[in-house]
Amino acid sequence: MKIEIGQESFFDVISRAQSTLERKSTRPILENVLLKAFGGELTISATDLRVSLTQKVPCKVMEAGSISIHGRKLHEIIKEISKEDVVLETKENNWVSILAGNSAFHIPGTPAEEYPSFPTPPEKFQKINPTSFDRVLMKTAFAASSDETRIYLCGVYFKEWTDSKGKNFLKLVSTDGHRLSLVDEPLDSTLGLFTNGIIVPKKGVNEIKSLLSNDAENFEIACSDGRLYAKNQNILLSVTLIDASFPNYQQVIPEISGQGVFIPCNPFKNALRRVSILSDQETRSVIVEINQNVMTLFSDNPGLGDAKETISVEYSEQPVKIAFNANYIMDILKVMDDDSLRMEFRDSLSPVIFVGTDKDARFLSVVMPMRID
Amino acid sequence: MKIEIGQESFFDVISRAQSTLERKSTRPILENVLLKAFGGELTISATDLRVSLTQKVPCKVMEAGSISIHGRKLHEIIKEISKEDVVLETKENNWVSILAGNSAFHIPGTPAEEYPSFPTPPEKFQKINPTSFDRVLMKTAFAASSDETRIYLCGVYFKEWTDSKGKNFLKLVSTDGHRLSLVDEPLDSTLGLFTNGIIVPKKGVNEIKSLLSNDAENFEIACSDGRLYAKNQNILLSVTLIDASFPNYQQVIPEISGQGVFIPCNPFKNALRRVSILSDQETRSVIVEINQNVMTLFSDNPGLGDAKETISVEYSEQPVKIAFNANYIMDILKVMDDDSLRMEFRDSLSPVIFVGTDKDARFLSVVMPMRID
Repeated sequence: MKIEIGQESFFDVISRAQSTLERKSTRPILENVLLKAFGGELTISATDLRVSLTQKVPCKVMEAGSISIHGRKLHEIIKEISKEDVVLETKENNWVSILAGNSAFHIPGTPAEEYPSFPTPPEKFQKINPTSFDRVLMKTAFAASSDETRIYLCGVYFKEWTDSKGKNFLKLVSTDGHRLSLVDEPLDSTLGLFTNGIIVPKKGVNEIKSLLSNDAENFEIACSDGRLYAKNQNILLSVTLIDASFPNYQQVIPEISGQGVFIPCNPFKNALRRVSILSDQETRSVIVEINQNVMTLFSDNPGLGDAKETISVEYSEQPVKIAFNANYIMDILKVMDDDSLRMEFRDSLSPVIFVGTDKDARFLSVVMPMRID
Repeated sequence: MKIEIGQESFFDVISRAQSTLERKSTRPILENVLLKAFGGELTISATDLRVSLTQKVPCKVMEAGSISIHGRKLHEIIKEISKEDVVLETKENNWVSILAGNSAFHIPGTPAEEYPSFPTPPEKFQKINPTSFDRVLMKTAFAASSDETRIYLCGVYFKEWTDSKGKNFLKLVSTDGHRLSLVDEPLDSTLGLFTNGIIVPKKGVNEIKSLLSNDAENFEIACSDGRLYAKNQNILLSVTLIDASFPNYQQVIPEISGQGVFIPCNPFKNALRRVSILSDQETRSVIVEINQNVMTLFSDNPGLGDAKETISVEYSEQPVKIAFNANYIMDILKVMDDDSLRMEFRDSLSPVIFVGTDKDARFLSVVMPMRID
């Protein structure tokens, strides 16, 4: 294999491939990327066996072929060389030479045949509104668990459904057992991909988000054989789904009354950030007290002191006092697009609902309160 | 004590004080800052017992007094509160209340009397050219050791001297045993502060540099009772000197011939950065070979591969091959202001001199080569 390629476009694809690899793998080949040159194109691929990425970039192919190379080292080299054309060529015993300007690198490779194989994507992909898809991924990814002993919580549940008026929705749900995030996004037309419900692992969701930020215009998805595929013009991503049943999330969502307290998001975010400075480092406990259009946030940490902040809200029912992990509320506020949200509760210990009031009226979070001593 | 002070000016001084404190101290009081309010001014001080900082900032003093508070927590609070006036007031049992906008914080303090005392600066301070002082600190601080078992190497040696023509110089020297950095800066007039030679600890040098970047115009220094003092209009810094003899550095500096190889700094820096990607992670060994106006840099790491780069230099003597720790050379290149440097050597194993060719002709570094196998 021998190719000539511009430093900038090479750096762009190697950066993306490198981010798919695990930083440290027990199998050395999984720290490598795979390069294939053929017909005026370089294909650069990477996999951690669960998420696989394949990118194409035009280049001058002097000799078709393939090789696999250590991803991080190749990334460092391409980053530092001069911004000119790079010549990459395979040599004896799978060594690879990289020439650019006055620099010459010579690094060991591994035959392409030893690289894990990539799944074959289905023929048919479908368009999905990239802006709305990006939005719903952002509003759910954060609440998925990272605890791999409960693998069924380590992803976002995707499910298509149709309401009684025949309108199609894509529902995304995530939960880590302490909080839950749910969004129902109207679909222009039925996709037919998620009618049975699938669980997309958190890392896969983040890779799809990064694909959307790269080239949203040509974004398409497909689903087959236990994998979700996403692609745009030059990149194909395949994500192995989590093979488990998603828990019955509906039972933890209290019935929605439409009542509760209306809270302006920005003041809430600022107050929460300040008050949590003096919250316990472990529990992050902050107490929210609401009484007659005033919300008071408290934290009290015997060793550090206490903090109090008030904000104006809309509420005229019975006073209430609820304790939360401040991080959970902050995570919701970070992805909320509306200027205000509605917080619905029954008492100090029942699950509390946070829901948008305008564009985010179909984005709902449930947070389990903490016990107040 | 009760004061009212603008958030921005308070944040500015608490940030600087906080950086002087040790992140984690065995004595809790050393994680605190000291606040004193008197006569329309807040004095905020911090010490790690070796470096002490005192800053003054105008404020409204409703009640004079003093208190010491946890520096990092106070910093976090002042950072996050709204950008308005802050009211800080001491309460019963040394508690401190901080009010700003809708926020109220209440944190425990410690009586000011328990805070370590600050040294009394001498009456007389002297002006020193701030630009040139900053330059010489930068050119030496990096080569001081961090190994506290050889405390006499953990700082920069300052020494005033006069040449045979009666011209005054300030010499700064630092070494960690593997490399040495020396600069001789002409002085407009004699200072009389460093005629005996002192060792300023590395952290103290960095604090002085930060003071210079804050307000260079009113910068002055003094030296007395084993301490170096530096101040500008609002800040006073005191640094306890290292009480040890600086080693006889002259014996490791080879005699200077004025010969050697002339190397352009930028190409050298780029080449070194690239070639060191494939150098050993521990030794950072890079080989430099010079032959007839061409310098070739090599690295060879059996596991990772090899890298080679050539640059044009001025050299027509005998070919030579020397191995270096790439980091040591990079450190020199980072602080070199000249476009090219001269590298002087006797053979592959003797100490090598790097010296500027123009503005930096009085800045000299010595690096011990590595053995080539």
